[in-house]
Amino acid sequence: MTSAPLRVLVWNENVHETSGDPVVLGHYPDGIHGAIADALRAHLGDDAVVTTATLRDPEHGLSDAVLAATDVLLWWGHIAHDQVSDEVVARVHARVLGGMGILVLHSGHYSKIFRRLMGTTCSLKWRNDGERELVWTVAPAHPIAQGVPQPIVIPQQEMYGEHFDIPEPDESIFISAFDGGEVFRSGVTYTRGNGRVFYFSPGDQEFPVYHHPDIQRVLANGVRWAAPRGDVGPEPTADYHARAWFEAAGGSTPAG
Amino acid sequence: MTSAPLRVLVWNENVHETSGDPVVLGHYPDGIHGAIADALRAHLGDDAVVTTATLRDPEHGLSDAVLAATDVLLWWGHIAHDQVSDEVVARVHARVLGGMGILVLHSGHYSKIFRRLMGTTCSLKWRNDGERELVWTVAPAHPIAQGVPQPIVIPQQEMYGEHFDIPEPDESIFISAFDGGEVFRSGVTYTRGNGRVFYFSPGDQEFPVYHHPDIQRVLANGVRWAAPRGDVGPEPTADYHARAWFEAAGGSTPAG
Amino acid sequence: MTSAPLRVLVWNENVHETSGDPVVLGHYPDGIHGAIADALRAHLGDDAVVTTATLRDPEHGLSDAVLAATDVLLWWGHIAHDQVSDEVVARVHARVLGGMGILVLHSGHYSKIFRRLMGTTCSLKWRNDGERELVWTVAPAHPIAQGVPQPIVIPQQEMYGEHFDIPEPDESIFISAFDGGEVFRSGVTYTRGNGRVFYFSPGDQEFPVYHHPDIQRVLANGVRWAAPRGDVGPEPTADYHARAWFEAAGGSTPAG
Amino acid sequence: MTSAPLRVLVWNENVHETSGDPVVLGHYPDGIHGAIADALRAHLGDDAVVTTATLRDPEHGLSDAVLAATDVLLWWGHIAHDQVSDEVVARVHARVLGGMGILVLHSGHYSKIFRRLMGTTCSLKWRNDGERELVWTVAPAHPIAQGVPQPIVIPQQEMYGEHFDIPEPDESIFISAFDGGEVFRSGVTYTRGNGRVFYFSPGDQEFPVYHHPDIQRVLANGVRWAAPRGDVGPEPTADYHARAWFEAAGGSTPAG
Repeated sequence: MTSAPLRVLVWNENVHETSGDPVVLGHYPDGIHGAIADALRAHLGDDAVVTTATLRDPEHGLSDAVLAATDVLLWWGHIAHDQVSDEVVARVHARVLGGMGILVLHSGHYSKIFRRLMGTTCSLKWRNDGERELVWTVAPAHPIAQGVPQPIVIPQQEMYGEHFDIPEPDESIFISAFDGGEVFRSGVTYTRGNGRVFYFSPGDQEFPVYHHPDIQRVLANGVRWAAPRGDVGPEPTADYHARAWFEAAGGSTPAG
Repeated sequence: MTSAPLRVLVWNENVHETSGDPVVLGHYPDGIHGAIADALRAHLGDDAVVTTATLRDPEHGLSDAVLAATDVLLWWGHIAHDQVSDEVVARVHARVLGGMGILVLHSGHYSKIFRRLMGTTCSLKWRNDGERELVWTVAPAHPIAQGVPQPIVIPQQEMYGEHFDIPEPDESIFISAFDGGEVFRSGVTYTRGNGRVFYFSPGDQEFPVYHHPDIQRVLANGVRWAAPRGDVGPEPTADYHARAWFEAAGGSTPAG
Repeated sequence: MTSAPLRVLVWNENVHETSGDPVVLGHYPDGIHGAIADALRAHLGDDAVVTTATLRDPEHGLSDAVLAATDVLLWWGHIAHDQVSDEVVARVHARVLGGMGILVLHSGHYSKIFRRLMGTTCSLKWRNDGERELVWTVAPAHPIAQGVPQPIVIPQQEMYGEHFDIPEPDESIFISAFDGGEVFRSGVTYTRGNGRVFYFSPGDQEFPVYHHPDIQRVLANGVRWAAPRGDVGPEPTADYHARAWFEAAGGSTPAG
Repeated sequence: MTSAPLRVLVWNENVHETSGDPVVLGHYPDGIHGAIADALRAHLGDDAVVTTATLRDPEHGLSDAVLAATDVLLWWGHIAHDQVSDEVVARVHARVLGGMGILVLHSGHYSKIFRRLMGTTCSLKWRNDGERELVWTVAPAHPIAQGVPQPIVIPQQEMYGEHFDIPEPDESIFISAFDGGEVFRSGVTYTRGNGRVFYFSPGDQEFPVYHHPDIQRVLANGVRWAAPRGDVGPEPTADYHARAWFEAAGGSTPAG
């Protein structure tokens, strides 16, 4: 990792906000992306440069040039998943495989990009009664859990429950409980290609979850964890290798 | 797997029962081991021969001869873990590494054998207020979850909560929620050597959990899953292999 | 698992064979699918009914009706991946998520269905010099490794080498070495939705690998392992659950 | 992680060296521990303070005070595993569970501490013919693989081959091939309690492997990866938690 600041991009479909929903705007006058970006700036300081993009921007704000200048992408979407163009999804996918980190948030579980990275439906059970969510750490040594209380208490949240149709996670960091009795694997990690993926479910447009200091800390920890370990490159390719190629002058190729 | 019946041994420290605890004896007049053995016989029928052994038996009922005739061992212990001899623990450990399956139940999380198999403290958080436990399946395609309702409802149970200090499981099958809000990874699997390990937490001496039909089904499924895939042998050894040993007359050795 | 025979379908693009390639036809006069189907019939006997389908069949031989009658699908493709229709791929994908097992073979690593299930490029390094491949078992207790020698010796094979761009496997069963010095994770498993996925790399159209008795055994073991544990259903869906739904009359729903 | 330098301790049984073995002393005049410590100092610079300890030191150089001042321990042993006292092993084990990182090297696979952390025999196949070892990266995005060529070429090494009797790794980073055709999972990671464990097999007393610049880089990367994420504490304990304990004044406890 170089000492240059991490280039972090917070993407939000920004539909609830621009539809004038008073509850959402009450919590997030600058949009969910604005709240998250502010939180990351506060936590990461000079270690990161944080920008935002939304669905209505040209190319959804995710042009080749923008992605080429992004180390970690955060993704929030809910009611407009199908308005995200397949071309942009393919572009984001390739960038993740090349090494860009991605944090998929809450209802982003049903986004095209997350389903494509997972290979499953990513479906779940849900209910929106404003229940208390308790977020329990099951991997206390993991960098994403550093400085996080046991449990995180979120007074009001949408319920997300099992079964959550995801692949067996590489690492399970958080498991949530809801007042109604359901549980949910709320913080899980994967590697896809050279890119790191962190899904974190707390955060709904109807509740001020992204103003919760512990949730903000998890997001900041997640960004640091998902940061590329080396340069982000093109996605991996199938290559012909002649016998003993690695003995040739100039030797072997960089692995990581 | 041969068509011979599985040889299943249910081990119980049997201390609460023989101490005359009226609550425990009310639930388990034949001991916890008796109740579990009856349940397995009912579920597995002619596919298994189920016997029992307890702490006070000679060699804790776990002599070399007994272990050599055991395919799957179930382990229940609570207040007498330190009375189990290290020699017997080493013997059970070697048999698991050689291929015997083992189901570790409830307070067995703190048994010498489980801690030795895991390499961690296996500590957890606990409270005994007779709370409702909901056991949620997170791996619905797993053989151990077949025929199990979502969720299993246990009206009264001891609370076991995270953080549970175990290695990241090979497979996470069940996660439990308790009325007080805690969660617990209540059904997890591991492989150690050639042996399969299933830890399942529901089941306490003060509540009739082992009479619950869904819990009984999980135990029966667990026994089938943990059954050795081939003959159980000695634990693996470090061997010298001459160059090209696998090309010698008689060829290579069996892997599985 | 019911006692009804497993319904196994071997799919092959069947392009090398129908193009009249004499080397391929020399090894596989009935097509690669024919050789594999014969091998599975020999190993599985009355436990399975084995049929075949190819790219040129209507709907590639993978109509809704055919898939609805398939428990385990084997997939071999090489030079015609892009001729497989996206609609059929989506159909197979949904069936896997619903519980159908799938074995992806050799150059099928680059098939649309495997890449969709994995979420990565599935690219690798390769060379076709007819080198010896040694297939080493690293999970001897796994059902897929039962009866398999250590190592399997394949006199001539195409080299497939790391890095293989796949997600961290749920289970790594086999690792191969080639005479040129490369290694490859040649047998790996995943679960996706309710379906089990086994990728196994040995097997090329230019060499008689599918006539190798040990390779045939692995395929047969793989089919048994990938068999659905319960009924195959639709892919999982996102559902609304009212508070305390599981306490309602009729109780909870089947998990597995 | 604080900005204070990492406290790294390289432990070596130091028996080959002090027995006057001319081959070993030729490669390692300051002992294997001396060579490794020098390499770590060169790579880590001001980020670490590197010290050494050996078997013949009082308490093997692993007193409570020394361990309390150690963030990451490296362990090399071969012919004197049984001379390491059980008391010291228990102490190191507890410190790892409390958060100290540990790198177990080469023949340390058979050390008491590694077997205790793994719960398996950690046995393997071996041969010492001075064969070429190729170390292939299978997790190029992992921090331990950064800056490492694909493959690392070690001209002469002892062969370590599968089956290696370890638990399924949390992460598989490197797989080695030997000229004789064997493969070995040569770089694997685990978490035990709050501590991170990295086993790395290249490195034998008869060959100058620890002078190989790529091997040195892996060790330095491994030390950084294994560094504790927070303060190292006592090993986790089982605690009683009253209902709603997390709502009490002062709130919940730190998770990570």
